[in-house]
Amino acid sequence: MSLTIVGTVAFDAIETPFGKTDKIIGGAGTYIALAASFFEKNTNLISVVGDDFPEDYLKMLNANSINTDGIQIKKGEKTFFWAGKYYDNMNKRDTLVTELNSLANFDPIVPETYQDTDYLMLGNLTPNIQRLVIERMNKRPKLVLMDTMNFWLNNTLEDLIQTIGLVDVLCINDEEAQQLSGKHSLVKAAEKIQAMGPKYLIIKKGAHGALLFGEGKIFHAPALPLEFVFDPTGAGDTFAGGFIGYLSKTDDISFDNMKNAVIMGSVIASFNIEKFGTERLQEITDKDVSNRIQQFIDLVSFELKPNII
Amino acid sequence: MSLTIVGTVAFDAIETPFGKTDKIIGGAGTYIALAASFFEKNTNLISVVGDDFPEDYLKMLNANSINTDGIQIKKGEKTFFWAGKYYDNMNKRDTLVTELNSLANFDPIVPETYQDTDYLMLGNLTPNIQRLVIERMNKRPKLVLMDTMNFWLNNTLEDLIQTIGLVDVLCINDEEAQQLSGKHSLVKAAEKIQAMGPKYLIIKKGAHGALLFGEGKIFHAPALPLEFVFDPTGAGDTFAGGFIGYLSKTDDISFDNMKNAVIMGSVIASFNIEKFGTERLQEITDKDVSNRIQQFIDLVSFELKPNII
Repeated sequence: MSLTIVGTVAFDAIETPFGKTDKIIGGAGTYIALAASFFEKNTNLISVVGDDFPEDYLKMLNANSINTDGIQIKKGEKTFFWAGKYYDNMNKRDTLVTELNSLANFDPIVPETYQDTDYLMLGNLTPNIQRLVIERMNKRPKLVLMDTMNFWLNNTLEDLIQTIGLVDVLCINDEEAQQLSGKHSLVKAAEKIQAMGPKYLIIKKGAHGALLFGEGKIFHAPALPLEFVFDPTGAGDTFAGGFIGYLSKTDDISFDNMKNAVIMGSVIASFNIEKFGTERLQEITDKDVSNRIQQFIDLVSFELKPNII
Repeated sequence: MSLTIVGTVAFDAIETPFGKTDKIIGGAGTYIALAASFFEKNTNLISVVGDDFPEDYLKMLNANSINTDGIQIKKGEKTFFWAGKYYDNMNKRDTLVTELNSLANFDPIVPETYQDTDYLMLGNLTPNIQRLVIERMNKRPKLVLMDTMNFWLNNTLEDLIQTIGLVDVLCINDEEAQQLSGKHSLVKAAEKIQAMGPKYLIIKKGAHGALLFGEGKIFHAPALPLEFVFDPTGAGDTFAGGFIGYLSKTDDISFDNMKNAVIMGSVIASFNIEKFGTERLQEITDKDVSNRIQQFIDLVSFELKPNII
């Protein structure tokens, strides 16, 4: 099948207790596309950068089967830049710099070659821009997945709710689900959010895994228990990218296959945090993934049967 | 097999957003024994109460296959009393009253009929009293499980570490594991705690489930996602009780069967929070448990295989 992703492509400068980077490639769109393209070799990216964005980064994306025709290069402008520093076991993060630059007036263009895409992923971005991408597709994709964050809940709630009403799957974290729904219980939060439009909801719980809600069913995927996290930047994006990439590759949007896709998202995210930025994502092998799938199976499998009592 | 439990038997007065109780039966020993006796019909309880403790409560325990010969009734003394109030989605709890009463000078007696017990459960209690019970058994039980809490970490750390060194399985929550080990990563915390003595460690994560560590393996059990929690009192105790009761009943202490026991603990705990105090525990049926095991299977099952890549 084919997958189109809209999301930021950026420069990140990251500092963790383990070290720091210069400006490296980052942005939700980058992480999502790299994760998704592990599965879906027909992956398209829509974004915007400045003319300071290195050709080599575009080549790296292309080398990972990512079509970059939809990345606008703005002459005389700079690429979106974010700098952040992690402290204390990665639980606390300070944003040191946010320069929107070319992202400030982002008007997403859907290239003709992207038009018949089967799957659409709206990475974390201004809700109105996410909505524009849906509107600018000639036909409705088979499935639209949306990621977002608390910033849009706090600043553009009305726009956010409008875009949420247009998507099939929403992916947010537990605190965002509670804030959006006004409900503490995630089961009740899910009910309320599904009533806003999305047939399916994924609630990310960080180190505690993720929940998938849909068709009156619930699935729980654990996160892999880890000895340490090197750099958590992009973990949520790679989770979503692994999820949608696997769905697109298998072209099966049943609840059962979405459960598999949640595990695949967790698998890919578990690699991403092992090195700085997208470094680990670029080197994952089939064998790495197979081994980690087995770890997830071992982590949750038990023999108990209902008739044991 | 047979199971002996030491733990408090108490009066609790509980207030939640859903209502409040007068003095009802509570205490870690009570919750553990009621949960365990769902599986193990040869369950013994060691505790102490005052002469204000109603005969009917002892009869209720006996009716649930719990031998109460080891519960000392102190003449002229009162039963341990705790009163607490829950707020805000049960995340916050204030202790309103703690009257140790007969618990203050608790000197545990192991009745002759308990002596050849196969499994021993040390409910949350002064670490020195927990140790005394191990020492007062004529022979080492097949497996000793210990529960504890942050109070003993903060106030009697040396005694606590001594008792931890004597047990096979330790059951604590994530914050306690981090405090005890000085490690943030639960994987590293588990390594360090296992080096203190226990071959197996269960880390409870409340609404996020529980992790079992042992033999170099990790198992993750989710908690059942719930619409609401009526009364969380005793959830951790019933989890431990279900775990040890199932182990004793099946008499299989392999890691694989411990995984089953963790699920059984989660199943029993998920009932306990549906009503005040021990009310729901006293009425669970085999059919209830079978249905809930199926819910746990549905919650975590997926089809993905390592060779899918």
